[in-house]
Amino acid sequence: MSSKPSIPKGTRDFSTGEMLKREYIFESIKNIFRLYGYQPIETPAVENLTTLLGKYGEEGDKLLFRILNSGDFLSAVDDKELSNRELGKLSSMMCEKGLRYDLTVPFARYVVQHRDEIVFPFKRYQIQPVWRADRPQKGRYREFFQCDVDVIGSDSLLNEYELIKIIDDVFRKLRISNVIKINNRKILAGIASYIGASERIIDITVALDKFDKIGAENVNSELKSKGLSDNAISGLQPFLKLTGDSSEKLNVLMKLLSASEAGLKGIGELKNLFELIKGSSFKSMIELDLTLARGLNYYTGAIIEVKSSDVSIGSICGGGRYDNLTGVFGMEGVSGVGISFGADRIYDVLNQLNLFDEVEVSSTQILVVNFGEKETSYALKILDLLHSSDIRSELYPDSAKLKKQISYADSKKIPYVIIAGEDEIKNDSLTIKIMSSGEQKKLALKELPSFVENEISAKE
Amino acid sequence: MSSKPSIPKGTRDFSTGEMLKREYIFESIKNIFRLYGYQPIETPAVENLTTLLGKYGEEGDKLLFRILNSGDFLSAVDDKELSNRELGKLSSMMCEKGLRYDLTVPFARYVVQHRDEIVFPFKRYQIQPVWRADRPQKGRYREFFQCDVDVIGSDSLLNEYELIKIIDDVFRKLRISNVIKINNRKILAGIASYIGASERIIDITVALDKFDKIGAENVNSELKSKGLSDNAISGLQPFLKLTGDSSEKLNVLMKLLSASEAGLKGIGELKNLFELIKGSSFKSMIELDLTLARGLNYYTGAIIEVKSSDVSIGSICGGGRYDNLTGVFGMEGVSGVGISFGADRIYDVLNQLNLFDEVEVSSTQILVVNFGEKETSYALKILDLLHSSDIRSELYPDSAKLKKQISYADSKKIPYVIIAGEDEIKNDSLTIKIMSSGEQKKLALKELPSFVENEISAKE
Repeated sequence: MSSKPSIPKGTRDFSTGEMLKREYIFESIKNIFRLYGYQPIETPAVENLTTLLGKYGEEGDKLLFRILNSGDFLSAVDDKELSNRELGKLSSMMCEKGLRYDLTVPFARYVVQHRDEIVFPFKRYQIQPVWRADRPQKGRYREFFQCDVDVIGSDSLLNEYELIKIIDDVFRKLRISNVIKINNRKILAGIASYIGASERIIDITVALDKFDKIGAENVNSELKSKGLSDNAISGLQPFLKLTGDSSEKLNVLMKLLSASEAGLKGIGELKNLFELIKGSSFKSMIELDLTLARGLNYYTGAIIEVKSSDVSIGSICGGGRYDNLTGVFGMEGVSGVGISFGADRIYDVLNQLNLFDEVEVSSTQILVVNFGEKETSYALKILDLLHSSDIRSELYPDSAKLKKQISYADSKKIPYVIIAGEDEIKNDSLTIKIMSSGEQKKLALKELPSFVENEISAKE
Repeated sequence: MSSKPSIPKGTRDFSTGEMLKREYIFESIKNIFRLYGYQPIETPAVENLTTLLGKYGEEGDKLLFRILNSGDFLSAVDDKELSNRELGKLSSMMCEKGLRYDLTVPFARYVVQHRDEIVFPFKRYQIQPVWRADRPQKGRYREFFQCDVDVIGSDSLLNEYELIKIIDDVFRKLRISNVIKINNRKILAGIASYIGASERIIDITVALDKFDKIGAENVNSELKSKGLSDNAISGLQPFLKLTGDSSEKLNVLMKLLSASEAGLKGIGELKNLFELIKGSSFKSMIELDLTLARGLNYYTGAIIEVKSSDVSIGSICGGGRYDNLTGVFGMEGVSGVGISFGADRIYDVLNQLNLFDEVEVSSTQILVVNFGEKETSYALKILDLLHSSDIRSELYPDSAKLKKQISYADSKKIPYVIIAGEDEIKNDSLTIKIMSSGEQKKLALKELPSFVENEISAKE
């Protein structure tokens, strides 16, 4: 095999440069999660298919990556079943396991499985890759990372408020101007009931979700094609066209939905939430957006979505409250709320806005030149000294030409090069070359620790 | 589905407590890799099976987890092939992708694929999970993490020396007493040729590899059963029974192998390496171990393995030099050397030796008690203050009974609890309870920042 090797469609290698930028994002997010008392867990990449199937709708089931059973994967399949080629049936007979599709369902599974060890309310975060057999396209991958933060076992709105604080802190830290859109599923339910189409809430929310992208006219014809009555559709229009700030909208809604218990409950929750928000200072724009539905049917209360103000790339964070996520695993009546940061899109936003300038591009601070065997022990002595001062440094492993070694430092953006040849060794000294200016300084070996402390550590 | 959910055999959930301990290990290792100028990359969990197959021997191929193709996975299979049930053939027709089995082959693939962007010598580290369909047992998992560090594109022995320094630094930092065993594949080749069984080097090294576990007698009978002549086996005995320190052993070897070019080269390399090691200070015991082979046939020079001195658990780190790892992907003549730390075993060693005491068990430092709606805005003010001082802190989300909230702090090992009820709010003050002693202090709100700076941040 001598053709150039490759990786599967929709997957990626991350180079050192990309890794350092990604780590900057993950670390920033993680530190803020921890600041608010959230703690990490991890779950396996591979879950039982019984855990995953049926949780993401029919479409989701098709997007699960299934793992062929080890050994005789046909042992459960008889000849007739085999020749029938029923793909769905065969794949479930040949595959017991699949790759994680998101972090939410594994989290629910985790909570139920470990309920006796967990202290509730349980505040956890989880940063891991997920896999989806989606058609790859720009910005959509088959293997990508999610950064989820959830609190489960408390229905207090303070949790929603806290998550919005976290969003604000994260994007303030990353310097991304953003809009946080908030809605409440109970209001959507109220609207559906108000227009006399309670049982059509899914169609309505999916349609509302598209309002931003395709406009009122298309939304309406989509609803019509789904069999919604003209009455219902015209009843929906005032909700699509609400204007004013969040509290004005809520006041209008209160009147429109005065007969809907769920609707009023949702409005009350949003009023409380906006009240809490008013009491603190936020850098993000925060607004009520009735068209926000996120198509995820497990949300039962708040729905949250964040967009960059400067880069048009879809949502960079989203989530909401779910009152019964663990019910499907046999643990009823546990309310939770959570959000997920989209690391890949955040990466693209930071890249487009040139906001990675703070990230150190080189890991190594000093390269020690290799002059050959005779000089090696002196070079290693210098290296030991640097390492014990916690300076990231390396000795070029081969005694290559000086030019080649300097060009290595240059390519790797190493800012300092130490030259210690025969002359330097004679005087227990060294020459340090500052790559940015080309300037060279001569130091006694014993001056090195104070030099690095003053010149290099200070810049960290 | 209401039976308790579970995860696949050989996989694990990591709780918060375990995560913090694991992060301590990964961070310690990573910081030392960076200190020596190694830089991170990551590769996808899912690789093309063409990349993975044939790289780990026949046994390894069987241990690969294969991923069923999306869509019609039977499209390439005709009825006859289907009814023949040839598992190997069918699985390669139905599966194009598999889960990563180790980090070494993906690294080789990465180097070849990105050769034009890489600056050589390329010093990289990679910390990611790998998957093997091994039979799960105590300490052996189907999903586990590897921490690999390699330098590729340089054949200088300074690289081997540096990796041994890294091993010493890592286990010094983690406070694990250890023995580093070193061998050289060229010496093994020399021995095989000396006893007239050059073509049997694989059998011989596998047998030597087992010497530790099953003893000389069993090794000899195994070699006999594999068809090695009595002459060859008796010729092998002096090598199994070498005594003395490393340089004494090397001197005897030099005589025994005086006719073997490869053998002498290997001895020369080891002599140089031990010379370099003598020039610096190590905490690890470092010794030549001729029985060390590690069964991995891609090693061509140094072979390295590390064991804990206090816990008997197999190797906790291992690796070696490979002269042609990228050859299989069409890039010849690139020498590399690398080692891999076994995070799971290191975790077990630290646990058994109670060496996790330095790891913070709680992430949250202060819990603010929730007294109800009226007191919320004051509590949030305190929380904002704490967060802006970078103190990991949380407000209990519900206005539960004080006892319940204190018991939450207790279960989560949160060291401080802030109580701010009606009385405190009246005087712009708060009460801080130190959980370890039960002591309570009254503070003015404005004294809080200096209190946390002196009392809490100082302990971090």
